[in-house]
Amino acid sequence: MKHLNRQILLSKRPVGVPRADDFEASEGPVASPGPGEVLLKNLYLSIDPAIRGWMSEAKSYLPPIQIGAPIRSGTLSQIVESNADGWPVGQIVQALGTWESFSVVPAGQLHGKVERIEGIPLQSMLSVLGGNGLTAYFGLLEVGRPKEGETVLVSAAAGGVGSIAGQIARIKGCRAVGLTGSDEKCAWLTGELGYHSALNYKKTDLRFALKKLCPNGVDVFFDSVGGEILNTVLTRLNRRARVVLCGAISQINATEPPPGPSNYLQLLAKSARMEGFTTLDFARRYEEARIALAHWIREGKLHYRDEVVEGIDQAPSLFLRLFRGDHRGKLMVKLADPEV
Amino acid sequence: MKHLNRQILLSKRPVGVPRADDFEASEGPVASPGPGEVLLKNLYLSIDPAIRGWMSEAKSYLPPIQIGAPIRSGTLSQIVESNADGWPVGQIVQALGTWESFSVVPAGQLHGKVERIEGIPLQSMLSVLGGNGLTAYFGLLEVGRPKEGETVLVSAAAGGVGSIAGQIARIKGCRAVGLTGSDEKCAWLTGELGYHSALNYKKTDLRFALKKLCPNGVDVFFDSVGGEILNTVLTRLNRRARVVLCGAISQINATEPPPGPSNYLQLLAKSARMEGFTTLDFARRYEEARIALAHWIREGKLHYRDEVVEGIDQAPSLFLRLFRGDHRGKLMVKLADPEV
Repeated sequence: MKHLNRQILLSKRPVGVPRADDFEASEGPVASPGPGEVLLKNLYLSIDPAIRGWMSEAKSYLPPIQIGAPIRSGTLSQIVESNADGWPVGQIVQALGTWESFSVVPAGQLHGKVERIEGIPLQSMLSVLGGNGLTAYFGLLEVGRPKEGETVLVSAAAGGVGSIAGQIARIKGCRAVGLTGSDEKCAWLTGELGYHSALNYKKTDLRFALKKLCPNGVDVFFDSVGGEILNTVLTRLNRRARVVLCGAISQINATEPPPGPSNYLQLLAKSARMEGFTTLDFARRYEEARIALAHWIREGKLHYRDEVVEGIDQAPSLFLRLFRGDHRGKLMVKLADPEV
Repeated sequence: MKHLNRQILLSKRPVGVPRADDFEASEGPVASPGPGEVLLKNLYLSIDPAIRGWMSEAKSYLPPIQIGAPIRSGTLSQIVESNADGWPVGQIVQALGTWESFSVVPAGQLHGKVERIEGIPLQSMLSVLGGNGLTAYFGLLEVGRPKEGETVLVSAAAGGVGSIAGQIARIKGCRAVGLTGSDEKCAWLTGELGYHSALNYKKTDLRFALKKLCPNGVDVFFDSVGGEILNTVLTRLNRRARVVLCGAISQINATEPPPGPSNYLQLLAKSARMEGFTTLDFARRYEEARIALAHWIREGKLHYRDEVVEGIDQAPSLFLRLFRGDHRGKLMVKLADPEV
């Protein structure tokens, strides 16, 4: 007998910071896969700022989530029925899925087969070896292109992506400096994660502090925050510096177009560049990145933290935590264990 | 007997659009070159927006012009006395010089020897084969990296740099589209210069017009204007588009920090990049660029226009014309003919 499919739907488009009533739960029958499709049992949901973007009507690299449709997110899922060649039942996959217990998706929407890696928990295929790790890896190394000895500044440095980006910078011989919003998170960055230094930007004048924190200027700024932080860092760029645009959590809930970075002409004065990306740009190289990340984890050079809550009904409240900024590392929801 | 040295000095820092009384003329003896220095007779002064930047106190890639010092600009000059090995009397050079009849400069400040090119007037070594041509060449080809068939949009398209950048785009098989401020200049762009289309942005809603003008979106935006034009074009970028920051004439006279491009997150949505540069970044490759530009001129593929006025006292008023936007091509001041 099939189970019911429990879903979390977008009930209305958020205005500003999302609220619990932007979501609603729903239950219905589990659909059957058509030709070329698979039925997924979703094991983990990835809780990311990008979801906030998809909840808006604004155009982006993916279309907006429709009102009444389940929330889109990365998932870690297991194939439980398959009509798609090469995608056998039992296979664990990463997918661009939705917040529901079971999903029917065309095989083309599966991001890849997940091979368990010894010593690394399954869920981490969604964090350090999933979207967050890939985003940090390609964003830092391919867009930021840091050279040994350079200063790499990371905003949202204790978040799912930033916490990895700064460590990759450190592994590559750069001076890794983190910006975050609490003293506790600063201690985590300079302690366990091995950032060279970290700043609680809520307690200090950033412009002044940056001169001390990055006395040789900033060569790479890996930015997931935007707004005034980005604008201030632009004044401290070195010649030929690179600003990696990973996100803009400070602006993601804005109800009016937020001001742009008025110091953008520093890019001209410094022959510097500001560049956006998505991990999808590097889809052919995911395996390379996972091998490198897993290698660093096993060597003890790369640390990560997954914050997991259980039950699909917890997804909205966990998502809202993203905007309070009191988490460290990756947020995810566990729905089920895989069937062996 | 030596002549007097007539100079145009910065009398005070402009507030907003420069005015005639920000400059003052002065006359004095001609200095003698010390060891490693040369005495230049300045033949032509290059009149460029960059000068406005140097007149401000703001930091840039060069220090501000001091109050009471002669205005800095590119010059085409002839060596009339030399204490520097390899820089013989009679040699015509490009220099980062100043608005004066004669300059004493260290040899390190000479940008290069000027070899006359058959069929190309001497003065054009300061325009299409000088800073403007080099800026268009390296900015478009090395920062913008257009591919055949792509759409290249150029702002200030009838200016000294833009008029060349759009033609290089056309020569490279791109669709060259120009933005400029008058119907006359539009006609020049699509006529003599061979732009595929041109828009008088003062007469039209740019956002609406861009959809018609660039129906396939914008792959490369070569921008010398900034402000609202840049912000609007950001909404029309294609995936992996490149915004070449060449200048920001719309902001150069601002008395308060102008708003930044609020649509900058389009760079993230489109995996696009915005990048500044100066021609100095490519100093080792000037000869390659001049050979290519001269070749295109001789083939009749590259057209240019120099607007020359005579007499150093005309320099301030010619400079002020830059901000009226009623010129086409390059502005320069002729001070003297070379001695043969």
